[in-house]
Amino acid sequence: MIHLPVRTYREGQWYAQDDAVAVEEPLELRLHTPHGPVALGVLMRTPGHDRELLLGWLVAEGLLPTGFTLNDDPENPNVWHLHSPEHARLAAGARLAVSSSACGVCGSGSVEQLLARAAPPTWTALPIPVRVLTGLPTSLRERQPGFGATGGLHGAALVVPGGQLVCTREDIGRHNAVDKVVGWAHAQGHLPLRDHVLVVSSRAGFEIVQKAITAGIALVVAVGAATTLAVETAAAFDVTLCGFTRDGRLTVYAGPERVSDGA
Amino acid sequence: MIHLPVRTYREGQWYAQDDAVAVEEPLELRLHTPHGPVALGVLMRTPGHDRELLLGWLVAEGLLPTGFTLNDDPENPNVWHLHSPEHARLAAGARLAVSSSACGVCGSGSVEQLLARAAPPTWTALPIPVRVLTGLPTSLRERQPGFGATGGLHGAALVVPGGQLVCTREDIGRHNAVDKVVGWAHAQGHLPLRDHVLVVSSRAGFEIVQKAITAGIALVVAVGAATTLAVETAAAFDVTLCGFTRDGRLTVYAGPERVSDGA
Repeated sequence: MIHLPVRTYREGQWYAQDDAVAVEEPLELRLHTPHGPVALGVLMRTPGHDRELLLGWLVAEGLLPTGFTLNDDPENPNVWHLHSPEHARLAAGARLAVSSSACGVCGSGSVEQLLARAAPPTWTALPIPVRVLTGLPTSLRERQPGFGATGGLHGAALVVPGGQLVCTREDIGRHNAVDKVVGWAHAQGHLPLRDHVLVVSSRAGFEIVQKAITAGIALVVAVGAATTLAVETAAAFDVTLCGFTRDGRLTVYAGPERVSDGA
Repeated sequence: MIHLPVRTYREGQWYAQDDAVAVEEPLELRLHTPHGPVALGVLMRTPGHDRELLLGWLVAEGLLPTGFTLNDDPENPNVWHLHSPEHARLAAGARLAVSSSACGVCGSGSVEQLLARAAPPTWTALPIPVRVLTGLPTSLRERQPGFGATGGLHGAALVVPGGQLVCTREDIGRHNAVDKVVGWAHAQGHLPLRDHVLVVSSRAGFEIVQKAITAGIALVVAVGAATTLAVETAAAFDVTLCGFTRDGRLTVYAGPERVSDGA
């Protein structure tokens, strides 16, 4: 974060002060092909853990190559370079799709496209006590120094069944925070993330559930609401989806069998 | 919204109930070219006001053609068809950019790219009393029936200097809500939106400020935090940016001259 001079109005008075503001910068992943470099993606993100962010993003997009090098730019901290023998597949995967019919553009179509490239996550652990799950947002918040200072950063964390947070990341983008924890897991050799919980400080839309599934995560806990397509996707992949997890409450939208009443 | 069966845990008890859930569906804008149809963009959105959403999105992306037809699909409510003599420019604008240098990928580069295609908005009205601005989030919230029911919908509204909300829209995506109000203004022939305020229920990142600027809006009020790049962009375009606007409070990050102390 950086501190910026602002004017704040409260209780009828103006105050000049320096506020901590969350940093937002573009990050470009540059794919090198025989025909020249191509911007595979540009993400607006909070700098930090950039390599993890890019790895996690590649996992979620189904673009992670089996062989590659990923290096930062010696001159620009907002550019990373990807070299891979699979450059043709990567460029094609990111390129504009040519549509040939009106079919497929619907919620079910989105779920079907994901089913074509990802398997339902595996869960071998016991169900998790509901009191462990309702406590996760507080544990996440306690590990979000950036949010505490700026009020402008989303958080995501990976949690083991006992309730311990094994990786926490922050970003101005809620999707980026998830990509960063998944990228961390990839770098650790932990993918797919069998028997892990993903907790997010935000709402749970389709893309959050998609990122969980592509990382092998079978249980998602969101502080905010879920969307219809997130619920449909979770149900199709037998993923447990919890929302409105706050103040000792929780709503289970799909997969209730992984949530137990035990204390 | 639709109602889904859920299990809710609160105060130590489980309850089976039907909860209202915000709808999320993909929307494809299909550009027709002599070489066939191309997906110009796919937006995950809450159905409703789809034409406004697409018009607003085209404005923000700098892709709105001078001559075009935009029609829904007779068979799929999630597909719209765009025909324009400018199809080559549109397809190129949406296509992957080929990068030629490490320059430009930074916050300043993002601002410079926007300066190349958008002018600073014009403001001819008097400054707005701070008490009018601090009241806008409540007025927006009162016009968000979807949020009240689901807790999962962002809101955006256009406001005239007297404080009246002239257009309010909701969507699961905060960017979409802004595109919808801008698209409404375009359809009304109101662009550029001189002397209008944009109020958003969310945080203000770079893209929210960018959408305001491309619509000609000089004053942005966000309920949540602002990011560094949003502040930098607002300052470069002489746009007033307010954040943390809640409970009678407000923080001015840029352009304080359009906020007055008057009651």
